[in-house]
Amino acid sequence: MAEEIARTASASSTVLRPVSNASRVAALQRIHDFLEAGKQEILAANKVDLETAEKANVAAPLVKRLDLSKGDKFDAMLQGILDVASLPDPIGKVTYANRLDDGLDLYRVTCPIGVLLVIFESRPEVIANITALAIKSANAVILKGGKESFHSFGAISRLVREALAGTEIPPGAVQLIESRQEVSELLKQDKYIDLVVPRGSNELVRSIKDNTKIPVLGHADGLCSVYIHGDADLDMARRIVVDAKTNYVAGCNAAESLLVQRSALQSHLPTVAKSLIDAGVTLKVTPEIAEALKECGAEGTWNATIMAAEEKDFDTEFLSLTMAVAAVGGVEDAIKHINTHSSKHTDSIVTASKETADRFMNGVDSSGVYWNASTRFADGFRYGFGTEVGISTSKIHARGPVGLEGLTCYQYQLRGNGQVASDYVGAGGQKQFKHGKIDI
Amino acid sequence: MAEEIARTASASSTVLRPVSNASRVAALQRIHDFLEAGKQEILAANKVDLETAEKANVAAPLVKRLDLSKGDKFDAMLQGILDVASLPDPIGKVTYANRLDDGLDLYRVTCPIGVLLVIFESRPEVIANITALAIKSANAVILKGGKESFHSFGAISRLVREALAGTEIPPGAVQLIESRQEVSELLKQDKYIDLVVPRGSNELVRSIKDNTKIPVLGHADGLCSVYIHGDADLDMARRIVVDAKTNYVAGCNAAESLLVQRSALQSHLPTVAKSLIDAGVTLKVTPEIAEALKECGAEGTWNATIMAAEEKDFDTEFLSLTMAVAAVGGVEDAIKHINTHSSKHTDSIVTASKETADRFMNGVDSSGVYWNASTRFADGFRYGFGTEVGISTSKIHARGPVGLEGLTCYQYQLRGNGQVASDYVGAGGQKQFKHGKIDI
Repeated sequence: MAEEIARTASASSTVLRPVSNASRVAALQRIHDFLEAGKQEILAANKVDLETAEKANVAAPLVKRLDLSKGDKFDAMLQGILDVASLPDPIGKVTYANRLDDGLDLYRVTCPIGVLLVIFESRPEVIANITALAIKSANAVILKGGKESFHSFGAISRLVREALAGTEIPPGAVQLIESRQEVSELLKQDKYIDLVVPRGSNELVRSIKDNTKIPVLGHADGLCSVYIHGDADLDMARRIVVDAKTNYVAGCNAAESLLVQRSALQSHLPTVAKSLIDAGVTLKVTPEIAEALKECGAEGTWNATIMAAEEKDFDTEFLSLTMAVAAVGGVEDAIKHINTHSSKHTDSIVTASKETADRFMNGVDSSGVYWNASTRFADGFRYGFGTEVGISTSKIHARGPVGLEGLTCYQYQLRGNGQVASDYVGAGGQKQFKHGKIDI
Repeated sequence: MAEEIARTASASSTVLRPVSNASRVAALQRIHDFLEAGKQEILAANKVDLETAEKANVAAPLVKRLDLSKGDKFDAMLQGILDVASLPDPIGKVTYANRLDDGLDLYRVTCPIGVLLVIFESRPEVIANITALAIKSANAVILKGGKESFHSFGAISRLVREALAGTEIPPGAVQLIESRQEVSELLKQDKYIDLVVPRGSNELVRSIKDNTKIPVLGHADGLCSVYIHGDADLDMARRIVVDAKTNYVAGCNAAESLLVQRSALQSHLPTVAKSLIDAGVTLKVTPEIAEALKECGAEGTWNATIMAAEEKDFDTEFLSLTMAVAAVGGVEDAIKHINTHSSKHTDSIVTASKETADRFMNGVDSSGVYWNASTRFADGFRYGFGTEVGISTSKIHARGPVGLEGLTCYQYQLRGNGQVASDYVGAGGQKQFKHGKIDI
């Protein structure tokens, strides 16, 4: 069953990959129109999900996230499809060209990856977003959403398939699956599935990474940090740390660790610590930090919110108003600490010195390295990608916030007029390669 | 032990990543000089390997490959180091830039991947080549070579470490390991090792892919094909097919399958088949192909070299003078056949029509798609990369022949002056992102 789904996706991918951007955009417009026309049908299905969730005593915030009728959620979902449709075509871009010899031209051209398996949470509007991303990038997709939106997903995907029936996109290019059992079977279909994109809890991502040979685009952890160098502007440091920690504690780009240069323990630490505590943050500190806070008379006032850190606190994604704090000797120490403990997501330095900042940015091995800015900017929309597929902490392919580009790869197109290798040096012949530039 | 090696490599990577191109080039020059000065020491060690191999009755061609004193092999090895050193710096290139807001500039900059584990065959000169590639791309590397060159590797790596001692490259950035046991332990160190590059037999690559969660850059199979469209120039088709099949049968870019459009079974097939058979190729053919060859009177003459194909022959990398041959209805059929059976390496169409060629190249999901050229051109040197790390059949990161670029990824550097997310829309504030172009 899973193999059949994967094989269908793979066969559909062959049909979808050469479809022009105009036809892909037309298909997305048609999906938009069908979902608009089917609004009542979708909301009716959504109501069944809501009632089921309430009966099952699902927590109120989760129920709220399921509700497609709230505010402008439905219209925003429809608009999102048009937004993705209007992005530049990510396919067919020439990124390298080389004239190997007269009449033998090599082009590196962006192309879809092939078949995506996207596993996502229960928000029903996400299915429309992912469908749009997949079709825009000419990838076939297998979708698995959270079970709480079962009926909503069913209604939306039915309409998507009806819409696709009148387009160049084969219906098998977008398949919805429903059981968790099928997911574990699909994760074995590395012959047909090229990339898994899990969007959900860290546990979900980790469990998927542990159970498949298919490459995974995603992040299991967001362990970000801010390093305050001794020459940092104090108020800037304070504002950046507070924003990075408290703006949205559940975000993967929220800071979990604070590193302070030893020379700044008196000048910077107390003010920054006080602002964090005022914002409700609990500090888990090393003995050195505790001592520094005590010396400046902090201990008495703040005792309840300052705790002794354990080593593992610097490897913990708190996702709450908690922050681990340590002192380091300087930028070299900070780099070492971050490369050892961070999840290679996003790390920031606050310093007045461009040289120090450059040292930090070239030394820290994370997908985002920031100078005088909050880690919270790590986001596809803020980066200007127009849309976000997810955030990757992988070291290859796509890193950091991933736009449509992350759903593409490339292929080499060689255009000749009958050339054979045996005419050239290295393969038995005498001809030399010319290797000249072709203007792209 | 393996964990210690991997942790050392990871720590060395932190030291190596910011080292300038000038210093990396200087280190490579120094390695070159040390190996040049140590020639007698290396050749003495190499002689021990040769004697050991002869005593163990290792096959003569393999012994020959071990011999560093043959011809210009030693000098070529030394020159190879300087060639890699003189390539453009792959690190620090800005590939995307976006002004998010006034004073908040985002740059996407190429950077090393981190830690490589490279497993390679017994040719002793390969260790110098891989060391050069790793240092040039600022990656730490763990090297494991074939056991037949044990002493040669030891001598070369000792000299490399001595040479590095006088440079900015930490000695732990290049580590040689010796036992196969350690490899299987290293394959578990996904916390420290970022990419495995196996260079060797298909069995080796497949076994590594099956036994690690670390991404693997390589190809287990090279199942390439040539498709002859009905309008192809007959002599061009004949020359391309013969070159692709016979120029170097052990190459991963050699063709294993031939597809012929039905309309060309009389016009093209007999001539092409005769040339293949004259070149010593055994054809494994479908009944339809057999019939076509019989009809044109071929059967009597060629019987011994034409065999009935089984379905699995189209999924087999023969690596010998054997070729599977089938008929297809046209370019659509050819695309489907190739996307089902090929290993996504390199596939070629011979046709007089640009439109048909474009259809083929946009439809075939392989890293190389060729028009009127032999599949044998799939090679980093022929592509003009200056060097080749390997050939990848992966669908993400690097595909096809991989140059130095495949050993790099990128990170986002954000340069601000104190910006915090909570000032901007979407995170609680009112400021809008400007998203303006920065000229690179």
